[in-house]
Amino acid sequence: MSECIFCKMMDGSIPAYTVYEDEEFKVILDRYPAILGHTLVIPKKHVADIFELDEETAGRLFKLAVKYAGIIKKAFNYPGMNILQNNGAVAGQSVHHFHMHLIPRHEKDNVTIKWATMDPAHEDFEKIIKVIQNAD
Amino acid sequence: MSECIFCKMMDGSIPAYTVYEDEEFKVILDRYPAILGHTLVIPKKHVADIFELDEETAGRLFKLAVKYAGIIKKAFNYPGMNILQNNGAVAGQSVHHFHMHLIPRHEKDNVTIKWATMDPAHEDFEKIIKVIQNAD
Repeated sequence: MSECIFCKMMDGSIPAYTVYEDEEFKVILDRYPAILGHTLVIPKKHVADIFELDEETAGRLFKLAVKYAGIIKKAFNYPGMNILQNNGAVAGQSVHHFHMHLIPRHEKDNVTIKWATMDPAHEDFEKIIKVIQNAD
Repeated sequence: MSECIFCKMMDGSIPAYTVYEDEEFKVILDRYPAILGHTLVIPKKHVADIFELDEETAGRLFKLAVKYAGIIKKAFNYPGMNILQNNGAVAGQSVHHFHMHLIPRHEKDNVTIKWATMDPAHEDFEKIIKVIQNAD
């Protein structure tokens, strides 16, 4: 996609802070990180989001993400890490080329991830299970 | 782990709202969801977090997560979805058995995911790259 900034970072026509690359993926530092060490795992081939990502590529991508989660843990030794992958503007996706965030966390960082929890009735759960299973 | 609630849900000794299961994983509804349709993908074998998850299992788990992301998208047709996996209490992990959240998102939901962004100097990025590469 000629207008996609991540495509340009993937093909090298725009510089990126690249930690690792292979034929299929790059691991780069987020240009506007939540914390130093905030890293992105990105497939070189343009897919907008998880709904366009084929399962085989997804499997290889997450293996790489898990490997780098461990490396980043070893590098900084922070007590936590969020793995976050946003799909759709409403979910906070700003660049519409699939990317997975690895965000090291510590006690005094500036990351907020929260939601109001629901306590649905048993019948609601049973209904939702059917809705999902019927979509399979 | 005898005291782990997810282990008990995985072996069936505590009920779960199960959407799917196979030898290795269960896909269940989150008991206290952010939204109806909020789903978890969980390995049956106890691992506390991503740092204990082997890469091969991780690859298979994410293939399944991507499949269910698509199914949940089809089931509810919300405009967004977060894939979130928390490691460590400081990162919001409450049950210390690896689980991946699939959280459908719409314009009026109650989910907040945000951080203050940094704008590090070029030298900081170069330093961080070396720190990560040296931990590999």
